[in-house]
Amino acid sequence: MDLFENISPIDYRYYGRDKEVKDALLPYLSENAYIRYKLKVEAALADALVNEGICSKEIALDISKACDKVTATEVYKEEDRIKHDIRALANCIRAKVSKKARRFVHFSLTSYDVVDTANVLRYKEFCEKVLLPALVELEKTWIEIALREKDTLQVGRTHGQHAEPITFGFTMASYVNRLGGRIEAIISAEDGLRGKISGAVGAYNASSLFFKNPIAFEKNLLETLGLEPALHSTQIAAPEPMTDLMHSVVSAFAVLANFSDDMRNLQRTEIAEVKEEFSAEQVGSSTMPHKRNPINFENVKSMYKAFMPTMMCAYLDEISEHQRDLTNSASQRFIPQLFAAFYVSVVRLTKVSRRLAVDKENLSMNFDMSKEMVAAEPLYMLLSLHGHPDAHEYVRKLTLKAEKEETGLRNVMEIDDELEPYLNKFSDAEKEIIFNPDLYTGMASVKTDMVCEFWKNRLQIK
Amino acid sequence: MDLFENISPIDYRYYGRDKEVKDALLPYLSENAYIRYKLKVEAALADALVNEGICSKEIALDISKACDKVTATEVYKEEDRIKHDIRALANCIRAKVSKKARRFVHFSLTSYDVVDTANVLRYKEFCEKVLLPALVELEKTWIEIALREKDTLQVGRTHGQHAEPITFGFTMASYVNRLGGRIEAIISAEDGLRGKISGAVGAYNASSLFFKNPIAFEKNLLETLGLEPALHSTQIAAPEPMTDLMHSVVSAFAVLANFSDDMRNLQRTEIAEVKEEFSAEQVGSSTMPHKRNPINFENVKSMYKAFMPTMMCAYLDEISEHQRDLTNSASQRFIPQLFAAFYVSVVRLTKVSRRLAVDKENLSMNFDMSKEMVAAEPLYMLLSLHGHPDAHEYVRKLTLKAEKEETGLRNVMEIDDELEPYLNKFSDAEKEIIFNPDLYTGMASVKTDMVCEFWKNRLQIK
Amino acid sequence: MDLFENISPIDYRYYGRDKEVKDALLPYLSENAYIRYKLKVEAALADALVNEGICSKEIALDISKACDKVTATEVYKEEDRIKHDIRALANCIRAKVSKKARRFVHFSLTSYDVVDTANVLRYKEFCEKVLLPALVELEKTWIEIALREKDTLQVGRTHGQHAEPITFGFTMASYVNRLGGRIEAIISAEDGLRGKISGAVGAYNASSLFFKNPIAFEKNLLETLGLEPALHSTQIAAPEPMTDLMHSVVSAFAVLANFSDDMRNLQRTEIAEVKEEFSAEQVGSSTMPHKRNPINFENVKSMYKAFMPTMMCAYLDEISEHQRDLTNSASQRFIPQLFAAFYVSVVRLTKVSRRLAVDKENLSMNFDMSKEMVAAEPLYMLLSLHGHPDAHEYVRKLTLKAEKEETGLRNVMEIDDELEPYLNKFSDAEKEIIFNPDLYTGMASVKTDMVCEFWKNRLQIK
Amino acid sequence: MDLFENISPIDYRYYGRDKEVKDALLPYLSENAYIRYKLKVEAALADALVNEGICSKEIALDISKACDKVTATEVYKEEDRIKHDIRALANCIRAKVSKKARRFVHFSLTSYDVVDTANVLRYKEFCEKVLLPALVELEKTWIEIALREKDTLQVGRTHGQHAEPITFGFTMASYVNRLGGRIEAIISAEDGLRGKISGAVGAYNASSLFFKNPIAFEKNLLETLGLEPALHSTQIAAPEPMTDLMHSVVSAFAVLANFSDDMRNLQRTEIAEVKEEFSAEQVGSSTMPHKRNPINFENVKSMYKAFMPTMMCAYLDEISEHQRDLTNSASQRFIPQLFAAFYVSVVRLTKVSRRLAVDKENLSMNFDMSKEMVAAEPLYMLLSLHGHPDAHEYVRKLTLKAEKEETGLRNVMEIDDELEPYLNKFSDAEKEIIFNPDLYTGMASVKTDMVCEFWKNRLQIK
Repeated sequence: MDLFENISPIDYRYYGRDKEVKDALLPYLSENAYIRYKLKVEAALADALVNEGICSKEIALDISKACDKVTATEVYKEEDRIKHDIRALANCIRAKVSKKARRFVHFSLTSYDVVDTANVLRYKEFCEKVLLPALVELEKTWIEIALREKDTLQVGRTHGQHAEPITFGFTMASYVNRLGGRIEAIISAEDGLRGKISGAVGAYNASSLFFKNPIAFEKNLLETLGLEPALHSTQIAAPEPMTDLMHSVVSAFAVLANFSDDMRNLQRTEIAEVKEEFSAEQVGSSTMPHKRNPINFENVKSMYKAFMPTMMCAYLDEISEHQRDLTNSASQRFIPQLFAAFYVSVVRLTKVSRRLAVDKENLSMNFDMSKEMVAAEPLYMLLSLHGHPDAHEYVRKLTLKAEKEETGLRNVMEIDDELEPYLNKFSDAEKEIIFNPDLYTGMASVKTDMVCEFWKNRLQIK
Repeated sequence: MDLFENISPIDYRYYGRDKEVKDALLPYLSENAYIRYKLKVEAALADALVNEGICSKEIALDISKACDKVTATEVYKEEDRIKHDIRALANCIRAKVSKKARRFVHFSLTSYDVVDTANVLRYKEFCEKVLLPALVELEKTWIEIALREKDTLQVGRTHGQHAEPITFGFTMASYVNRLGGRIEAIISAEDGLRGKISGAVGAYNASSLFFKNPIAFEKNLLETLGLEPALHSTQIAAPEPMTDLMHSVVSAFAVLANFSDDMRNLQRTEIAEVKEEFSAEQVGSSTMPHKRNPINFENVKSMYKAFMPTMMCAYLDEISEHQRDLTNSASQRFIPQLFAAFYVSVVRLTKVSRRLAVDKENLSMNFDMSKEMVAAEPLYMLLSLHGHPDAHEYVRKLTLKAEKEETGLRNVMEIDDELEPYLNKFSDAEKEIIFNPDLYTGMASVKTDMVCEFWKNRLQIK
Repeated sequence: MDLFENISPIDYRYYGRDKEVKDALLPYLSENAYIRYKLKVEAALADALVNEGICSKEIALDISKACDKVTATEVYKEEDRIKHDIRALANCIRAKVSKKARRFVHFSLTSYDVVDTANVLRYKEFCEKVLLPALVELEKTWIEIALREKDTLQVGRTHGQHAEPITFGFTMASYVNRLGGRIEAIISAEDGLRGKISGAVGAYNASSLFFKNPIAFEKNLLETLGLEPALHSTQIAAPEPMTDLMHSVVSAFAVLANFSDDMRNLQRTEIAEVKEEFSAEQVGSSTMPHKRNPINFENVKSMYKAFMPTMMCAYLDEISEHQRDLTNSASQRFIPQLFAAFYVSVVRLTKVSRRLAVDKENLSMNFDMSKEMVAAEPLYMLLSLHGHPDAHEYVRKLTLKAEKEETGLRNVMEIDDELEPYLNKFSDAEKEIIFNPDLYTGMASVKTDMVCEFWKNRLQIK
Repeated sequence: MDLFENISPIDYRYYGRDKEVKDALLPYLSENAYIRYKLKVEAALADALVNEGICSKEIALDISKACDKVTATEVYKEEDRIKHDIRALANCIRAKVSKKARRFVHFSLTSYDVVDTANVLRYKEFCEKVLLPALVELEKTWIEIALREKDTLQVGRTHGQHAEPITFGFTMASYVNRLGGRIEAIISAEDGLRGKISGAVGAYNASSLFFKNPIAFEKNLLETLGLEPALHSTQIAAPEPMTDLMHSVVSAFAVLANFSDDMRNLQRTEIAEVKEEFSAEQVGSSTMPHKRNPINFENVKSMYKAFMPTMMCAYLDEISEHQRDLTNSASQRFIPQLFAAFYVSVVRLTKVSRRLAVDKENLSMNFDMSKEMVAAEPLYMLLSLHGHPDAHEYVRKLTLKAEKEETGLRNVMEIDDELEPYLNKFSDAEKEIIFNPDLYTGMASVKTDMVCEFWKNRLQIK
């Protein structure tokens, strides 16, 4: 099949063409992977039947080997014939085993024992082996920037307006902290995923015929796959753990989107505090050779907008009639697209963060725009502390005077007699801040260190 | 590429494996199609430049022929090199034309003149040539059932409880009417789509250098593609017409989902008023051979749940900073998946509707469960009309008596002296309804005819 | 009740405390209003019964007068007793009419004949009398700014980066055009709303007992309220027209949100092209007296985020089982909050737009940042037109040279020998643009006029 | 204010009129409550200033007493004057303290130190004191039903079709388990909420001027309120913990909605396995006296549909520009409506669950419809186990024969010679199941016990 005959941009654009991404995701999120995981469950069943004394080791090995050989193409061909995906899978295994092994294939299971367990297993392994390492790599990259720039002065902004001074490292620390929290949320969510081998309505009806303790049988089978059973299931495992995992991913995606928005805004022509470092050959725009668009940050935000609404479907899929209806079957096939889009965005953001250049000159110029006004805040607060009866109003007038005379606040202060007795009470450090508002960064640098240390320890980042 | 290496179920399952669906959608919704449409815009530009006297017919023909030859694979290879999709497209065309034609390729355009116009064009043609005919076919199928069953008695249900009698045709007429309305909404929305050839910020900056009347130039170019220009555009055409089209599709999808839910419920073991006619070979379940699951209806509902939330992204994509940011670029690449999922559901529902079997015996049995109680309503109303002072309370007691004595309401009525003088005032038709509540279907049959006639005329269905 | 005991911010903050807003919305969106509209339907029924010869004019007048007197408090008290809202309403009317009129109250109707019709009527009247006039007022305000600033130079921005020149009026024209389109969408949607008087399952079962032509009866009754009947209804009218109205409102809300985002960004400290004109007494921030936060624009965006997701519920509410389930009953009671939030935002944006100050000095300063680079685009295009074989690369080198020598592009051009022969071919107007990129605004001013004229005519704005 | 002048149904219908609900929610979710909690933070500040040696105990007491007296009405009046909600609050406190205490009111804080901390505190206390106890009460009610009905035979249903037998208690256990999981999710989420006292941009700029260790100051102040500080904050605390809380509530709401859907379906006329026990006086429908609509279950589902989409806003509100923009200010004011709607639904569901009547006769009748077919599954499985070479096909033919001859499967079995040798190998228990499929309930009863015991222990329910 021609890649560009595809309809989903995940397939033809973001995953299918990028060897690195494809190698990472194919073993977990492709349809081939899904079928491979279902075969793993069928093989695990055969082993479990040996333990129960239902079939011989030889038969289990026969089935296990057959599972290794079945392909998605075969299974789909059989499904086209008999219109049942799991029955088709079982038939494909059966066709590859000895006659006496045949009746032990899929023995006692219902389709969703395989489907739910296979999905939980592949998503868990995807998180542990692919997604979480990628997230930790992004976290590490951000920590490096945060620590490197922990003392780089930046004007803090609220409402898009200059507020009080911080450092660029402190800005980064906000994302280090939030991403750290989301990494833990994803770990906790994937840890809560549960398999099930409890039959068509969850009551172990069929397995009760064959196994002394069908609940123990379920536990043992799942254990060989590294899974725990749901405390209660119907035809399907309780949907909430899956909803939690999706929530943890989507809420982490929001952190990426927020970071991307911030960096886009800091890259505006008039602000220009950061930029992507371009490679020599890279062309900005076809008509304006100097233009450097924040396309990577824009892409991440765009992906977020496309996939965040997936949660609506997740919440709807929590509802299944009685012991289960099938209206969550097609919709859950789309979940891997969410994981793929998120992973692609994490990788993209790691790359662009690595070559993020901080323009100290522009940071400084922007800060200087509001330098004088920044001093007004500590001045008013310190006057108040040192007993000025009406500090806020007094300082407000000073700033108006400074604006009117087109001079700096400090110039006005220096020649103001009323101020002198109070200023005399100021400590040296306090005076220093008034005349050098660059110093008015509070705990920005200290906090940056604290946050980075915390997450380095917590996530064992070196 | 192996089909099952894909991640999106649209690609590997619902479209990629079904020849009929693939043939229908590939020319509009695949990435190949997208590139083909962008090339159409570039070719239309060349023709328009001839009209403006900018280049010769020969050159335009040269460019037009080159556009026919460019492939997605080439364009993506070039994009990998220079990191700009539309510039890559232009380079691919340039590489196939004579040296003197080269500078007229993409002349005066900005990327989004091509992107927006190509998308609008392909979605418009997809609607007109593929989606709307499929919807009309579904409407036709439903009209046939409605007319066929317009007199088939069914108990009407509110709150899932038996209410008053209708006919199965009347039930169908509800969906005929709602789908008809949505077909018109889709027509109206696709009719509102607009192209744009107004340059990088929408002000015709570059085109003003070359064309006497750049606004007329835009109009003429788009006209050759069958499009009208947006009254105002920035780098992009106003997003609302596209949002309207998506809304029309999603709200139509809800009608399909509602129909599917209803049919699923009518197919419940205890209700069994409809069923899909199975083919002889079809297997219901691996363990219960008689089981006939409403998997097609479940699939449509599931697809609806997966794609309805797309609207959240559509509303977010209405917001673009200043003359445009690019955060709607990736997200809009996912729109074809919505159209594909909807189309697939329309086709599926048409097929399953065609073989929908109505079980008159069960319809009748279900109605009989509530037959007596149904009579209570017209009885109370007619007693009231004919002057009974306290009809509701009186009838309520009659029904309680009937319940207690485990007999029918009519039996109780016949031996009730107080009732006689009022019953004598009843017309024959009124009496008939009390004793044959099957007749109490109001305008169900008439309305079914009216609705079907209306939509047959409106949509020119024969 | 104490206003601040309320939980919804609509009630305690945005509507309940603002006399103007409250006066505008109370007659349509409050619970009192809802009950008043239901009483209107009951009164209209009485009149219709006279026409059918079922009751006398006197009785109808009796009922009509009673309807004027019933209060929400009474109805709720009765509902508490009997647990049925519409039956409670009917009881309250009955209690106020003569004995002989009593049996004609609510005669032949089902609850949802009243509920659906009353809602459609109040939303229609809310749109026509309150919302649309407010939107036209906002449109008018924006048109005034657009025309006033149609020649005010502004740098166009894409990706948040300076692109090509436009005018501030052209920026505004984008919103004039989009809002105009949405006003028409709302008009079209409210025009599509339909009432229903077709009984408990939509088949006119009860009304068929009494009226010769129950379909004509429905039409006539609704006509007196200014409504048309749905072509088909079940217990409820088809939900799509209501979904369309909500879509038209939410998609219009997105236009407001986009405008607000743009103005917030133009108000950033570093950009400062617009600002709200503050009143003399207004305090910006408690600590930084000069700070002027774009709180009104922020509020509109915030409201949009809170109410846009309402559409998810609208799409879900399109699905109702069989002849209706009641799972859309509570949810539809929340629709008035959407309308209120949107109206409040329209009014707020009108006020803040009226006092929007455009800072021409900053507009000019920002443009000058990119003035030289802006010239590069027309230069390259014109060189290309006049036969330069490799214009893009040539100009790219010129801009690099200018950057390196820290001089302007024009200075470099003037001393470049290779350029001269081409420049000689330039027309005077073409040269002018290269040396005065301020002129490179294309059709910005003309288009602004066109767009404003179009919508002034269309919406009859003077 | 007249209650029915309100627009939000929370205010005028679900909370404002119900004394019990109002008493429960008013102290946490009303606007009065919000202001009371902000005053708590201001009072806690005064105490913390004493510990730092900034002001005297006397002053702190003065402020604390003033905080007790400030009313919402006062604060709003002041806000109307100065257009700043927190400054207004501070002014109201100031007006009630001695002159020397005045400058210590709101000392060193930024508005959002108060807002974020107050919200976190009230939501935490709402969860702990109101919501979680109500949820545990619902869980307890469900556990009681589950245990009571653990052996009540019910046919399990998948796809709305009869599948294999379970018990009604097992059905309930599914919800006991899922609700238990969500209760723990809510506990975990409210436990993760964090306060902040870190100033306008989160860097402790102002507080660094006054306190030796501003980070310790924050910790101590919050500790007196029972809160922990965020590890990092900007003007606002990291938004993810709040998103997590909303997710835990919405995903729990889905469990309620699923239960309600199930009960509604089990209450269908044709199924009738459960019903709400009506009070003697309650009227079902105005026209059909026997009609008992599942309005409470419908209401819960409807509320879910109205409030589930709130999550879209929660995810959008995770994004805030730089050190914060204000576009989450209005939207977050709507969060209490979500909590109120959820609480109201929990209470409603507890009440209706308490009077849920299980109709054993109908359960039995429905099971009997599929009794014979249910036997086919264990028969085929056991034949297979005991060596039948083609059990599935063989049993399929038996069932067809039974259908054709209109007799039971067991009758056909008994006279089938081929079957005899295999049946002889069956154990007594196995034979019993074939002839009494009522016994084929697997571990339904055992699992019900296990699940109920688990959650009783875990949530300390007696």
